Amino acid sequence: MSGDAAGRYAFDGLDRAIHEKARLGIMTSLAGHPKGLAFSDLKRLCDLTDGNLNRHLQVLQDAEFVTVTKSVEKNRPLTICKLTPSGRRRFVDYLDVLEALVRDAREETMATLSPRMSKA
Amino acid sequence: MSGDAAGRYAFDGLDRAIHEKARLGIMTSLAGHPKGLAFSDLKRLCDLTDGNLNRHLQVLQDAEFVTVTKSVEKNRPLTICKLTPSGRRRFVDYLDVLEALVRDAREETMATLSPRMSKA
Repeated sequence: MSGDAAGRYAFDGLDRAIHEKARLGIMTSLAGHPKGLAFSDLKRLCDLTDGNLNRHLQVLQDAEFVTVTKSVEKNRPLTICKLTPSGRRRFVDYLDVLEALVRDAREETMATLSPRMSKA
Repeated sequence: MSGDAAGRYAFDGLDRAIHEKARLGIMTSLAGHPKGLAFSDLKRLCDLTDGNLNRHLQVLQDAEFVTVTKSVEKNRPLTICKLTPSGRRRFVDYLDVLEALVRDAREETMATLSPRMSKA
């Protein structure tokens, strides 16, 4: 098993706070909306229930990746969710790790499917 | 929010059985070793404890993505873990979804960082 160093597939760079599927959706949504998104819009985009969105936002707030600001607009409560600067940086870092992972995994998979192509 | 369809960031294609970080490591390791890997090698590559690796292998076996075969070699027990054909197909599908996700997320993030570059 040449090149198979211990921990090679531990994927330490994949931050669990971001990697979880629902939170990855939340982070991606917010990354595309620098002014933030209303709770109701985020819920719709990510197809989450109020309870699930709240639970995942709490994890992201604890990691200081997201801020949640409550206010009142036209007599109605408005909750705005927004990436923090460090949340944005960590998300970009996460995408780098994910991109490298996909590239490596594809190479591994292709090499085993067609050995002649693996070194071409 | 043009283009922001409901559920756009729900990422339904990200199979939870594969997406979880430790299981992603296991699937990637096995994808590169079509003849399978011994439990001890897989443990080392993924930097997991016996208990954790067993737990995650169980999830992958329940999904029929992985087979675990126990035998005896040179009087010592040998456990071989291997991707099933459907496990391999689903892993390739998963990589496709992940690749599209990284591309979209990068575009979104770049567009917000430098609006002038987004349509270049």
